[in-house]
Amino acid sequence: MSRITCPVMNSKLTTAERAAATINDGDRVGMSGFTGSGYPKAVPAALAERAKNEGGDFGIELLTGASTAPELDGVLAEAGVIRKRLPFQSDPALRKSINTGHTEYVDTHLSHSAQQAWFGFYGNLDVAVVEVSAVLPNGLLVPSSSVGNNKTWLDLADKVIIEVNDWHPRAYEGFHDVYYGTKLPPERRPIQLLDPLQRIGDPYLRVDPEKVIAVVETHAPDRNLPFKDPDENSKAMAEHVVDFLRFEITQGRLPENLLPLQSGVGNVANAVMAEFAHSEFENLTAYTEVIQDGMLDLIDTGKLTAVSATAFSLSAERAAAFNAKAEEYKGRILMRTQEISNHPEVIRRLGIIAINGMVEADIYGNVNSTHVMGSSIINGIGGSGDFARNAFLNFFVSPSTAKGGKISSIVPFASHVDHTEHDVQVLVTEQGLADLRGLSPTARAKKIITNCAHPDYRDRLQDYIDRAAAANPNGQHTPHLLAEALSWHENYQSHGHM
Amino acid sequence: MSRITCPVMNSKLTTAERAAATINDGDRVGMSGFTGSGYPKAVPAALAERAKNEGGDFGIELLTGASTAPELDGVLAEAGVIRKRLPFQSDPALRKSINTGHTEYVDTHLSHSAQQAWFGFYGNLDVAVVEVSAVLPNGLLVPSSSVGNNKTWLDLADKVIIEVNDWHPRAYEGFHDVYYGTKLPPERRPIQLLDPLQRIGDPYLRVDPEKVIAVVETHAPDRNLPFKDPDENSKAMAEHVVDFLRFEITQGRLPENLLPLQSGVGNVANAVMAEFAHSEFENLTAYTEVIQDGMLDLIDTGKLTAVSATAFSLSAERAAAFNAKAEEYKGRILMRTQEISNHPEVIRRLGIIAINGMVEADIYGNVNSTHVMGSSIINGIGGSGDFARNAFLNFFVSPSTAKGGKISSIVPFASHVDHTEHDVQVLVTEQGLADLRGLSPTARAKKIITNCAHPDYRDRLQDYIDRAAAANPNGQHTPHLLAEALSWHENYQSHGHM
Repeated sequence: MSRITCPVMNSKLTTAERAAATINDGDRVGMSGFTGSGYPKAVPAALAERAKNEGGDFGIELLTGASTAPELDGVLAEAGVIRKRLPFQSDPALRKSINTGHTEYVDTHLSHSAQQAWFGFYGNLDVAVVEVSAVLPNGLLVPSSSVGNNKTWLDLADKVIIEVNDWHPRAYEGFHDVYYGTKLPPERRPIQLLDPLQRIGDPYLRVDPEKVIAVVETHAPDRNLPFKDPDENSKAMAEHVVDFLRFEITQGRLPENLLPLQSGVGNVANAVMAEFAHSEFENLTAYTEVIQDGMLDLIDTGKLTAVSATAFSLSAERAAAFNAKAEEYKGRILMRTQEISNHPEVIRRLGIIAINGMVEADIYGNVNSTHVMGSSIINGIGGSGDFARNAFLNFFVSPSTAKGGKISSIVPFASHVDHTEHDVQVLVTEQGLADLRGLSPTARAKKIITNCAHPDYRDRLQDYIDRAAAANPNGQHTPHLLAEALSWHENYQSHGHM
Repeated sequence: MSRITCPVMNSKLTTAERAAATINDGDRVGMSGFTGSGYPKAVPAALAERAKNEGGDFGIELLTGASTAPELDGVLAEAGVIRKRLPFQSDPALRKSINTGHTEYVDTHLSHSAQQAWFGFYGNLDVAVVEVSAVLPNGLLVPSSSVGNNKTWLDLADKVIIEVNDWHPRAYEGFHDVYYGTKLPPERRPIQLLDPLQRIGDPYLRVDPEKVIAVVETHAPDRNLPFKDPDENSKAMAEHVVDFLRFEITQGRLPENLLPLQSGVGNVANAVMAEFAHSEFENLTAYTEVIQDGMLDLIDTGKLTAVSATAFSLSAERAAAFNAKAEEYKGRILMRTQEISNHPEVIRRLGIIAINGMVEADIYGNVNSTHVMGSSIINGIGGSGDFARNAFLNFFVSPSTAKGGKISSIVPFASHVDHTEHDVQVLVTEQGLADLRGLSPTARAKKIITNCAHPDYRDRLQDYIDRAAAANPNGQHTPHLLAEALSWHENYQSHGHM
């Protein structure tokens, strides 16, 4: 049975090629998609194909929810079509296009992207291309595996292209909570959200049918990357985090069932969830961006009773299992727009425990989440700033070394700063955990070097700080040797090791 | 007539010396005070005197609202009494104590200090020393010229010392709004504040009389530093800001009466207010931390109809004038706790226009607000992060050079980062304004160099970025030459000019 039961929308059914033909050179296009789920599967490829066939320098500005997949960012970047892109991305072809200077990349906080579009800071939105799982008889749209910025793109765009993907379970209806209360200042009102599972919106996305110029049917899976089993380092970091949470409970600073968890994307995040699975914790909740395999496992075992997120990011096996019994997860998972999942107001109110990865931290606790050796971008800041700044408690985690020990993730001076000393509370490597709350920079350095740095680098870090302190009799707050501060990164660039 | 009309509190009247004697070595002490107003005037000096007389290494940890005055931070720092201090400070003696390594300084966001104390992240609060303007018969306290963290210190401290300062107008009663709805997660509720002048709390501070161990009477003015008339640079920067706001109105991105203004402390902020005074703008509002002379002028001329703040910071003349006719300002000024004046939830909801100073910005838009040449702290981040991150629109302003042109405030690489590229929207120097919204780092660099850098430094900045781009074929997102990135600061340290 067709997923499109609305006569008006049915009348707009067409091919991906015809839909792609309506997108003009220079258009600003908002597409769905968040961490490899819920992105359009057909129109981007058709657009890439068209651009290749036409030759010339056809290009668009592309706005999404966050990272997408080879079928979106990948094909468009390979076709050289993406002139500008925001916010988070993680596709290898797109990353190359950014780092070689072909694509301008604007790395905004995920909670800022929708509102800044509304504020008019990015210019007019010409087209929206949004994947949904069904269109109801009255034209309402049932979202698919991510919500992201879809509400905003549908509201703002002059023209709308809808992809209806019946690979998604029809049971997605009822999983979403799309908040339609956002307004522009000075008309904004409080977000009356008190609990991860509380509904404050509608289960459906709305679209003005007049604006819909094409509807395309697809049957295609999400990206669904495999997760590796947690390695020793990930397990060690997860243990440090969970042990620390236990300690905070004993100190009366956290309730027995903790506070809502946020966990970034990746294997460490999954390892933390696995650690919870084997733990004594009960009645946990999550208010996060992305639901990965580990979080579904926690729901299955009953440890996790409520999850608010904006997207799934599952392995193929876990996605198949979820799709087969989606109905059973209803009432335990709620999927929101990213302006709500990442909203500073809600994150601060609920008191989130935020766990995010990092590339490197300096000895004073400034964190680099986005760049390699200062110049090249990896993925972007994503929601880590939204959560870290407003969390009750934040953790930044990374193995203490990379590239077989040739790179230390604890450095004298961060080659790029995404989270400042004012925002970073707890650093975690496989070596240990540094609780930086209420400490001055030099006190932080002591803990970071002792607890987090790899033993192979500890003496050199201590030597740096000792000499920096000696050289700056009137700069004892954050002693640095500016001529040497970035020398570890220079060493790596010149000699292949720090 | 005495300002203390409560018999219980009256019975605790004593001298500053006796009150100071109740503070023990190693105590964690929360004192009132925010930007040189509303700080205790007598007990800190008595404590400093006692420490000097006792000899030895008597010391305390000191928490305040923000910067205080010579009579608090100054005397205690000179006596060597402050082992640890948070959050914002600006006293020369205290700055020296921090930069020479005698005082540990913890530079937290102003919106974080109260809640992190509540969360237990700083340890137990032993004593509160809070200035008020009157004590009512029922024991309620009428705050004085700042609210800051006073509610939190009074609530958390084991012992409380009250200073009642009758230099403040008795008419302060009714100027304050102390929100008593804050709770710990998961019990937090929305802050139901929709408008700068809306009351959500009480006009009074509460204190458990059982905890009050001393009440001290004073009659002493606030710090009340003079403001200089705006110089040419400040005027130019103020014009750039106000012209830009005019442009945003023509683009439909701002209403005619703008959105609530926040303006940092200092002469540039005052110059912006002066610029508004001569402008066509009407019915302006402010939701800010500090009320300076310029803002009172705007109220007097009727241009500014509503101001929410947490403190005054006036010149002596303006303070005298205000005190003489305080009654007339009632209903136009409301003073809140700093956790509300700086609350991310409220700042984002109201859609603040935030204007803050900076020390330097790098070519990609990362801002240093706190450090000189990487190692020495100046004052601290204050509320600039609270406002910049959550504002509708933020400006960072600085003259393009310092030290007679020997320092450029636009540099290849910031020697400290307090506001990252993700948070900085508009940079302003006397040279011009760079609107960075929706731009990639390299596009930002072009605008910053062209519009904001001093002409004497433009070519060298452009040369740096050209060579950085050439050297990083796969690092075109944020091209840097790490060996040279901090060389401008090194030049200054070695040769006295960048």
